[in-house]
Formats: sequence, structure tokens, C-alpha cells
Amino acid sequence: MRSHRRLLGLTPSQLALHTHEESYKKFDFFSSFNSLQSMYSRNGFLNSFLESGKSTLAYSLSRELHSRGKLSYVLDGDNLRHGLNKDLGFKAEDRAENIRRVGEVAKLFADAGLFSIASLISPYKKDRDACRALLPDANFIEARLHMVFMNMPLELCESRDAKGLYKLARAGKIKGFTGIDDPYERPENCEIEIGQENGVCPMPAAMAGRVVSYLEEKGFLQVQ
Amino acid sequence: MRSHRRLLGLTPSQLALHTHEESYKKFDFFSSFNSLQSMYSRNGFLNSFLESGKSTLAYSLSRELHSRGKLSYVLDGDNLRHGLNKDLGFKAEDRAENIRRVGEVAKLFADAGLFSIASLISPYKKDRDACRALLPDANFIEARLHMVFMNMPLELCESRDAKGLYKLARAGKIKGFTGIDDPYERPENCEIEIGQENGVCPMPAAMAGRVVSYLEEKGFLQVQ
Repeated sequence: MRSHRRLLGLTPSQLALHTHEESYKKFDFFSSFNSLQSMYSRNGFLNSFLESGKSTLAYSLSRELHSRGKLSYVLDGDNLRHGLNKDLGFKAEDRAENIRRVGEVAKLFADAGLFSIASLISPYKKDRDACRALLPDANFIEARLHMVFMNMPLELCESRDAKGLYKLARAGKIKGFTGIDDPYERPENCEIEIGQENGVCPMPAAMAGRVVSYLEEKGFLQVQ
Repeated sequence: MRSHRRLLGLTPSQLALHTHEESYKKFDFFSSFNSLQSMYSRNGFLNSFLESGKSTLAYSLSRELHSRGKLSYVLDGDNLRHGLNKDLGFKAEDRAENIRRVGEVAKLFADAGLFSIASLISPYKKDRDACRALLPDANFIEARLHMVFMNMPLELCESRDAKGLYKLARAGKIKGFTGIDDPYERPENCEIEIGQENGVCPMPAAMAGRVVSYLEEKGFLQVQ
């Protein structure tokens, strides 16, 4: 059932190599970038502006996968900054390290046999490209990274502002705020794009349904 | 089934708080320190001298849990240094950060509903204490950290030396090598101790059986 179960009797270095290879053979890696962009996966990421709804979508997708008998886990960027990434700030190199660690943890979850859905803010193209680079040629192995671009307007995110952080950023009291005084480099190579429909943001279940339909169409929900 | 599934509709900060609390309520945290010490868990760690057999035991335990219908995942310290912790070396502060990150990832796996078994070298008491501190009062919440002291002699580990690293350390070509020129602070508060029996190292399945018996006796295998 799990790759490492077959590895008993190997040396640690052999285990390292085999576990590494096995994870690539067995799992897919989905990503969606939310608000401007999100990432999902079997492993996955969800990346967005603040208040874009990325966590809502992530948990909705997790619930939908659960209803289909698929184990999944949401790697919530906000939560991770209370734990694994609590030593990181929001300057560019810290953002890069934040994304790198989430990518590596998502790979571990994939190796464990779970879909993972990571929800975080990753505004820079080079960091997203680095996440893609964590996985080798998808044509050679079964692992894949699928990015979903949630094309929600900044104004919508800012209008939610439950924590009042956009207001503080507009007042210059928070610096380096994505979408205000720090750039969000629009993703160009995402596998799925989700946006408003007739000026209305789709319900979470509808957005999750879009992702699940994609997974079904591509055959990723049939993988054992 | 999983804590975060019940959290839809909460704000990200509420999610962070609830997910944090839920993980403490639901899961146990076992650890064993191997060769001198290992850690296991629902979340867990396995920590040891090089060549102590910690990975062998970790995978044997994972297989045994699997046979009982329990999902588990081995966080192998060697593997993690190829990925999540590849930016870390072996000086004291890097070892501390290595242990901290593995502890945080183990918590994520516990929150996902898996037992995790981490296999790594953690020679310093303060780092192990920091892992225990990741979990609050076990009497208040159900989360627990159980350390298993594998009391295997250094000579046994050194005699294996499959990678020739002990030889290099003895020759002074590798510095800061645990057990040679860097200390291994013997653990004093481990829940389980496993050692040689009549001068013979127990078979991996026997060692795993010891840990599983402990889990059964304490009722941790009955937790949903």
C-alpha cells in the first residue's frame, strides 16, 4: 500500500533513494494558485492573496475527496506559520523558503498515499517554478504538479478584509503586502483557471467540483 | 474523520487555532531514540547513532501497524536531509532545527490521522525536550510523546559502518560525528527501552513487537 513498506532490509542510503523514487512513481502533484493563483495536489498547494478564499476552497476540496474515499490533508499556509515555518517572515527569501518547505512536506504526504492541498501565498514566479522543479518529468514518472489559477479580483479579496490587514497595508502600516506594495506575478502555465461567473464568485463546493472533475477526467482519482 | 474537515466556514485564523487544538485532542505522539535513543509516534521520531538500526526498526514498526489497519508514515532523517532539511548541516543549531522541523511535520501527520515514525539523529537533550514541548500537558489533552531508548552499544553500530563513515570519523576526516567526537546525551525519561538480549540484538520484528505491545497496553491502537 505504501512505498516504504516494501523497503525493509535496505540500507538507509538505499532507503533514501528508493523512497525518493517511489514517491515520484506513485503520486500526482496538483497545485492551484488562488485569488491570483492556487495550487492543489496529490500533493498540493493553494496559493493566493489574503482573503481570496483559498482555505475555504482547500477544505471544500478535501471534503469532496473524502466523500470519494480519498485521503487528503490541507497544508494551510497560515497554520504552518505557527509551526514548521514560524521562523520565517515575509521578505522575498523567506517567502521562497516557505514555499520550498511546503513543497517538500507535500511530497512526504504524497509518499504516504494522501492527496495534499496546500493553501498559501506564493507571489513569485521563480518560487512556483521551483515547486514544479521538485518533481521530475511527468511523462517519465506518474508524479505531476497541477496549478489552478483562481482569477479573483484583488478588490473582492480586499472587500472581505476580515482581519483588517488590507486597511493597514493601504495605510502603509504593513509593508511588503502582496497585491498592495508587493507584486503578485500572474501565473501563466496553470492547469485550471477558476474565476467569477457573471460577476459572482462561485460557491466553494462548485469550485471544488471543478477541481474534482479535472482530476476525474485525467484519471487521477483512479490511482491506487 | 479528520479534524480539518469540520472546520469549513471558519476564518483562516480560526482555522489555525482549531486545527492546532484538534490535533492535540485527537492524536498521540510517540518517540523513540535509537542506538542510544529513538522516537516513535502517532506522530513520531526515531533518533539514533548512525548504523544503529533505527530505520530498520521504523519500517518494521510501520509494517506491523499496517497489518493492524493503522496508517503510518516513516519520517526518515536521512531522506529528509535530501529534501525538507537539505539546507541544514550537522552543527548544533542545525541539528536543533532539523529536529524541530521533523517534530512539526510529525504533528501535521498526526493531524492527518496517521501514526508517524521519525528516524533521525538527535543527540542533545535540549532538542529532545523541545520536541516534548511541542505537545502540551498530556493529562489535559490526548496527545502524547513516547520516547523509546534503544540501548545499543556504540561498538555494535560502529561495527556495521556500511558507509565507512565511522572509519572516516575515527581518522578525523569527519568532524562533529555523534558518538566519536560529538556527544550523545543519554536520554533519561524514555517510555520504552530496547537493548540487546544476552548479547544479541533483537530481530526488527521483535523490537517492533515491543513497541506495538506498549501501544496496545496503553490503549493507543484503539483510538479512532
